[in-house]
Amino acid sequence: MFDPVEKLKEFIRHPSVSADPAFKAGMKGALDFTSGLLASIGFNVEVVKTDLHPIILATRGDNPAWPHVIIYGHYDVQPADPLNLWESPAFEPEIRGNRLYGRGAADNKGPLMTHISAVARLLERRPDLPLRITFMIEGEEEMGSPSFPKFLEAYSERLKEADFVFLSDTGLPSEDQVVITCGLRGLVLCDVVVTGARTDLHSGLHGGVLRNPIQAVAELCASLHTPDGRVAIDGFYDDVMPVEEWEREQIRKLGADTEEYRKFLGIPAFHTPPGYTPFEATRVLPTLEFNGIGGGYQGEGSKTVIPSKAFVKISCRLVANQKPAKIRELLHAAIHARMPKDVTYQIIEQHEGTPYVVVPPDRANTPKDQSPVLAAAFRAADKVIADVFGKPPLYLREGGSVPIIADIKRVTGLDSVMMGLFLPEDNLHAPNESFNLGVMEKGMRASERIIESIAAK
Amino acid sequence: MFDPVEKLKEFIRHPSVSADPAFKAGMKGALDFTSGLLASIGFNVEVVKTDLHPIILATRGDNPAWPHVIIYGHYDVQPADPLNLWESPAFEPEIRGNRLYGRGAADNKGPLMTHISAVARLLERRPDLPLRITFMIEGEEEMGSPSFPKFLEAYSERLKEADFVFLSDTGLPSEDQVVITCGLRGLVLCDVVVTGARTDLHSGLHGGVLRNPIQAVAELCASLHTPDGRVAIDGFYDDVMPVEEWEREQIRKLGADTEEYRKFLGIPAFHTPPGYTPFEATRVLPTLEFNGIGGGYQGEGSKTVIPSKAFVKISCRLVANQKPAKIRELLHAAIHARMPKDVTYQIIEQHEGTPYVVVPPDRANTPKDQSPVLAAAFRAADKVIADVFGKPPLYLREGGSVPIIADIKRVTGLDSVMMGLFLPEDNLHAPNESFNLGVMEKGMRASERIIESIAAK
Repeated sequence: MFDPVEKLKEFIRHPSVSADPAFKAGMKGALDFTSGLLASIGFNVEVVKTDLHPIILATRGDNPAWPHVIIYGHYDVQPADPLNLWESPAFEPEIRGNRLYGRGAADNKGPLMTHISAVARLLERRPDLPLRITFMIEGEEEMGSPSFPKFLEAYSERLKEADFVFLSDTGLPSEDQVVITCGLRGLVLCDVVVTGARTDLHSGLHGGVLRNPIQAVAELCASLHTPDGRVAIDGFYDDVMPVEEWEREQIRKLGADTEEYRKFLGIPAFHTPPGYTPFEATRVLPTLEFNGIGGGYQGEGSKTVIPSKAFVKISCRLVANQKPAKIRELLHAAIHARMPKDVTYQIIEQHEGTPYVVVPPDRANTPKDQSPVLAAAFRAADKVIADVFGKPPLYLREGGSVPIIADIKRVTGLDSVMMGLFLPEDNLHAPNESFNLGVMEKGMRASERIIESIAAK
Repeated sequence: MFDPVEKLKEFIRHPSVSADPAFKAGMKGALDFTSGLLASIGFNVEVVKTDLHPIILATRGDNPAWPHVIIYGHYDVQPADPLNLWESPAFEPEIRGNRLYGRGAADNKGPLMTHISAVARLLERRPDLPLRITFMIEGEEEMGSPSFPKFLEAYSERLKEADFVFLSDTGLPSEDQVVITCGLRGLVLCDVVVTGARTDLHSGLHGGVLRNPIQAVAELCASLHTPDGRVAIDGFYDDVMPVEEWEREQIRKLGADTEEYRKFLGIPAFHTPPGYTPFEATRVLPTLEFNGIGGGYQGEGSKTVIPSKAFVKISCRLVANQKPAKIRELLHAAIHARMPKDVTYQIIEQHEGTPYVVVPPDRANTPKDQSPVLAAAFRAADKVIADVFGKPPLYLREGGSVPIIADIKRVTGLDSVMMGLFLPEDNLHAPNESFNLGVMEKGMRASERIIESIAAK
């Protein structure tokens, strides 16, 4: 059995920045390293070409009667700049204290190595384990996984045979409190560009005869929320999955302090829809936010212009069971209905993503047809994590969006068990990224036992 | 008597761009040229130093019993770039057809030369003319006349002795229709900067718990107008001078076509307060406009951020007899009253300007105490312009702001007779600026007779 930390250091030394063509060799190095490592522990490794960076599909166990787990991870990393802010070079891993520093240490090479090591240890101990395991490791996650949906479609027949997906690409709030992410928000985005006059106008010569496009954009934006912070679009909340008491209980157990959160954000007061705490609102409610607004003069001092154009960038975060297409339709209808007739405007669609939810077994709202293998994995995780980390995991939906999880569900029908392994202080996407080696060790033990538990008896 | 067109060409050859320190020699050249020319026709020339570009104060006639006219102009010009769009070099004057091309030809060297030439001709014919004439010619107009108010304060005792100011730094709609500008709008400007969280936030992790500063800015902006296009601030219209029927009649005589104006602007429909045509609204009503708005992500595509800050740049155009200080107070009070408590914000004051109005004699609203010399000048202008141009002038207030006119009124009590001499096609502030030599010739004849008419009998 290899040394997991040494292997992780080797993995980090391959500078696999997917977004930057200058790192082609690093991408190839990380791909070959991962493929080779999986082959060395007995996997059949297939390298699936995509338009950009290949996907590794590695399998062991060929008895179709055995349960089947897919383990997801990614071998690519974020760019490392600004390089001068790193205390040790980004691609020369270094252990300081109980942490291993390097780009990708926590996102996602460390957590992925945790699972590879757990599987290696398990298979060394039980070479005949009656379980099918597939590693599905992509190289474009940090670019938004552009090739992944096409890959899922092409391989859906094979992937559908599995029982669930297991992965660690989410976080935990503290070393002893694992979180299993049970939901992610979806997205609908668009830009609205409003045009008034055909060119910028002198506000003295023409001010007072036309609607300023900034005013039209402002009026639209101001109409999209109620005073108490809800989204003011008819039907927007129709499909929202009601929050169950068990879920509020999990959020309370997180023990987060509202006043501390307010201070962290640096705001005078929260503006949360009535009936929800801030910690609930980001997890179980949809939003409509303005990500950018612009028009006219933006510099110092003044320029008395009536701009020809103004725009706003709108994004809706969706929760289960909202449908992006329906929300997009409602949003567009609201814009059409509210825009005045004395301006022209254009709606530019941006990408969208489906929200995701998986309800653990034995809850009031657990689906009746939940996969028994998935249910067994959740039950095992609950017990094993309590043993290894000292506390049972919390089951929380998160406010962010991980489109691939919803894509996997949409294309293959598979749910995901997301066991968070990176800490807030791990500096993901920032200089001095690191991974806590204590969490790694505990994660390996937990992963090994969870995977073992779902094997056929 | 010199050749006015040759002298204008000489004037233009001095590249007197006040805003660009690289044109120091051009500024000095234009200053010396103007001073020398005025001295050559019998004026006592004083060059008044300021913090930046000197002001010329040139006088003739020392009998305090004589009427006294101040003729205003400026010897500085706008920058000439983009130079490659000029058909002949900006500072090498060239006559093509009936036009003289060159930077400053129309703004303001041509109109100023028109008056200097008229005075030269008049004094050649009547060397003993019983009239005091003062040329007051600044070199910072294209920079917003920063030194001018201080100069007015310092010289107010001398300037106050005059009867009125005569100038041509406004426009006329067509070659045969002179406009005498009887009012200019004032300005109150400020920026409002709203802060939400202390830093930009991930809209997934934190969306739904706080008021987005873009939303706060939009809600403020949307609250500042009524649906029918008036400004929705209590007291905003309290001091607005009522529009008289004679003034609406003058605006109608302008003969501007509403549909043509709509097409020129390129808007689907006007949005003008009820009871006013678009041509009235820009002249006699105050406005509140948004000159710029910004916050968050402004690039292509999407970035799902909740920005820490958003801002709007607001400007109010004021009409007689609104007071900038009072409007500023009302605007600030409206902002304070409407801004929600869950964001912080800052109001950054920008400059302000007083609105200006002068009512010609013999109108329903002419002030009882109007200067008889000013009244005589208006009456002479009416007759002389009808003779020379073929039509009597129109008396119109304009939507723009020329702060120095209100400053002169505020500091010295003097009103201005603004005889427009540049045409819409003169390309002011743009490449290929030119001055119509036919208008120049008629302007000289009119100016000569108007000035002569106010001399003592």
